[in-house]
Amino acid sequence: MDRTKIAQLYADAETLGGQQVTVAGWVKSVRDMKNFGFVTLNDGSCFKDLQVVMNREALANYDEIAHQNVSAALICTGELKLTPDAPQPFELAATQIAVEGVSAPDYPLQKKRATVEFLRTQQHLRPRTNLFRAVFRVRSVAAAAIHRFFQDRGFVYVNTPIITASDCEGAGEMFHVTTIDPANPPLDDKGNVDFSQDFFGTAASLTVSGQLNAENFAMAFGDVYTFGPTFRAENSNTTRHAAEFWMIEPEIAFADLADDMDLAEDMLKYVIRDVMDRCPDELAMLNKFVDKGLIERLTHVANSDFARVTYTDAVKILEDAVAAGHQFDYPVSWGIDLQTEHERFLTEEHFKCPTFVTDYPAEIKAFYMRLNDDGKTVAAADCLVPGIGEIIGGSQREERLEVLERRIAELGMDPEQYKYYLDLRRYGTCKHAGFGLGFERLVMYLTGVGNIRDVLPHPRTVGSCDF
Amino acid sequence: MDRTKIAQLYADAETLGGQQVTVAGWVKSVRDMKNFGFVTLNDGSCFKDLQVVMNREALANYDEIAHQNVSAALICTGELKLTPDAPQPFELAATQIAVEGVSAPDYPLQKKRATVEFLRTQQHLRPRTNLFRAVFRVRSVAAAAIHRFFQDRGFVYVNTPIITASDCEGAGEMFHVTTIDPANPPLDDKGNVDFSQDFFGTAASLTVSGQLNAENFAMAFGDVYTFGPTFRAENSNTTRHAAEFWMIEPEIAFADLADDMDLAEDMLKYVIRDVMDRCPDELAMLNKFVDKGLIERLTHVANSDFARVTYTDAVKILEDAVAAGHQFDYPVSWGIDLQTEHERFLTEEHFKCPTFVTDYPAEIKAFYMRLNDDGKTVAAADCLVPGIGEIIGGSQREERLEVLERRIAELGMDPEQYKYYLDLRRYGTCKHAGFGLGFERLVMYLTGVGNIRDVLPHPRTVGSCDF
Repeated sequence: MDRTKIAQLYADAETLGGQQVTVAGWVKSVRDMKNFGFVTLNDGSCFKDLQVVMNREALANYDEIAHQNVSAALICTGELKLTPDAPQPFELAATQIAVEGVSAPDYPLQKKRATVEFLRTQQHLRPRTNLFRAVFRVRSVAAAAIHRFFQDRGFVYVNTPIITASDCEGAGEMFHVTTIDPANPPLDDKGNVDFSQDFFGTAASLTVSGQLNAENFAMAFGDVYTFGPTFRAENSNTTRHAAEFWMIEPEIAFADLADDMDLAEDMLKYVIRDVMDRCPDELAMLNKFVDKGLIERLTHVANSDFARVTYTDAVKILEDAVAAGHQFDYPVSWGIDLQTEHERFLTEEHFKCPTFVTDYPAEIKAFYMRLNDDGKTVAAADCLVPGIGEIIGGSQREERLEVLERRIAELGMDPEQYKYYLDLRRYGTCKHAGFGLGFERLVMYLTGVGNIRDVLPHPRTVGSCDF
Repeated sequence: MDRTKIAQLYADAETLGGQQVTVAGWVKSVRDMKNFGFVTLNDGSCFKDLQVVMNREALANYDEIAHQNVSAALICTGELKLTPDAPQPFELAATQIAVEGVSAPDYPLQKKRATVEFLRTQQHLRPRTNLFRAVFRVRSVAAAAIHRFFQDRGFVYVNTPIITASDCEGAGEMFHVTTIDPANPPLDDKGNVDFSQDFFGTAASLTVSGQLNAENFAMAFGDVYTFGPTFRAENSNTTRHAAEFWMIEPEIAFADLADDMDLAEDMLKYVIRDVMDRCPDELAMLNKFVDKGLIERLTHVANSDFARVTYTDAVKILEDAVAAGHQFDYPVSWGIDLQTEHERFLTEEHFKCPTFVTDYPAEIKAFYMRLNDDGKTVAAADCLVPGIGEIIGGSQREERLEVLERRIAELGMDPEQYKYYLDLRRYGTCKHAGFGLGFERLVMYLTGVGNIRDVLPHPRTVGSCDF
């Protein structure tokens, strides 16, 4: 079938005006005025619809078309008429409309506005609504922008493994991956479950991060990134947590924490600008119906220098705010893990722009972060953004073998588990750094959507694995 | 640190010649000639190395550098001298070399050539070898090319879920995803394992394909694609099977099998051309040391029209070959599933180019493939390529509700499990098609590497989940 996509009509209206075109898409609405009528058609190629005008005289099956339900699939042929005086730049004067697929009368998403909660029960159909059409286009464009950003800079994309046998600290929050039947597990001679008989010959889990694997590749390629799914078996039912989500984790060699922050800032600005450039219709819709400050906020962030403040100074700022009468739910003192309310105060009220908080106490950060010369803080940098709080967590990695070994011992971790990781420090170690960006958090930020369930095609959360 | 990457030196040699530059990288070899010496340095930014020349007079720590081991990390500063008469276009005349990280004398990958089998035990270090440097760069470039191919054509990238509760036919080959402790599983009142108490409130597995989910999005966006990990718990220890691998699955609306094949052919040619364009040094190395026919084969495929033959005609060709004396291990007759030996005969000896075999018997293909008018074949198309066999499996999907329902009933499948999938046929169904490309198979094809374990950063196969 020689059809033209609606995106193409909008891109080439000047050329295509006056021409015969065939457009295939789905009905958003039909208005029948007896002898003429209008079909609003969308084919998914862009956010905008096409208005199809039908005339009883010109169209043999006028009544058939006039009775189509929302979401019926139609193939429409006719002249593309430019309409400089109408709200839309053109319309299709149909001379032929074929019904490719009817839509049953019980179609669940009729014209009336459905709640996002109801739409979560219709995940197979919700991409057909304006809201999800916008969200999932932005998601796709943002993903492509991230790949382009890193590839253009010579980074190597690494598919770090999803299934892992490394146990790590967070084991309690990991999903087991197994072919063992829990009704009848193989047992060893002590009566324990014998994982040596499991598929991989050992207990295995779903990864929580590709970072340690990415470091293997950064020590060969210099600059690498991952972009893949990660998992948390956390029993937390919030608007910001999903059991399955995508992460971007760049890792850069011969680089320190300042380089890492520069990279994160450049990347965020690049993605925001690219989405603003490629998705103006989607953002306009989201700005109107989801978050009235969205476009202003994105524009501001794309053009701001991000603030940088140490954790120690950030705590002072928060303490001063408390002294000046500001109330937080959680008390503030040096050593605490910053809460979302603290993060949002810093980025929204104090700095009024995206803010890197750096050099956190070692106690509240991961074992692989580089110990600062003060002996009590580490070279970490979290990026906080207005409206959402933490969006990126990064650090310079501990590249000194003896410091890392000491830290692993202090934390009571098993050095044998980290043999390969320590090998990187034995054979040509170098200053290096990286960060993790939760992709769904970014999409929420780019769209103004407040619930992570609405930026994931088919969200997996505690108690929910439908579709 | 203001450093220049080696890729930049090669790109801008004219401009940078005669300038002071700083380069950071890892030692591939050191040759000490007493008063002068050479360090071959690679920083991962490109396949090519940099020759660093050091002179005892110019370099205070000459002896320290001369004694560095393979893989030590160095930061070298000096003048970039163009050497028009030498094999390499320039060298760095070092005035300062700092040791960023020594490499211990027991570094496992010394200069002598290691076997790929040994290197599989050194997955954290093997990206530093020429072979894996080439393979994993090609892998990254191919992944980026795939994204660019689809994005440039307006496809929406969809992250279909990794964890799934849909049981499907292939349940026996799926990994369970659970937080249940097999040593102490919760039981229901009949004594069976109670998966309603598992994390998702139901039994869950790792996905084997995103296709059914992708169709949800194709019915909204028209053209979509997935690119993510998929899993098989098959107990097969071959050079072509991994438990975890990446798949690309485009799905296109208002399209038939011919459109699907056009898309697959365009995509393969695009990726091959892009990799040839961006990775000439990597391919030259692979062509020299791994597969001497590689570049010729890729060039041929990028410039051939792919053959198209029905399964029925393909079987006749094979039967004719048998009649003419060709021996196959597996007998040939209409109705068989083609074996790799048959596929390779068709593409390598008969057609001598990539070949789509279409319209397979319904019995040997999946339930969702569109039934042809003959009532016994389906609109499937597998793409066979010389040297590897099947690389793509695609089909037009059954879009007719009643035909699909009948097929599901015939196969004894539970229609309730496919409610959402059937809904797509109830509400605006349309002709549509798609295919699956195993990404590792493609990387094997692009690199000539014969074992899937050597194109995966950290392969997961039966009995093996290291690193």
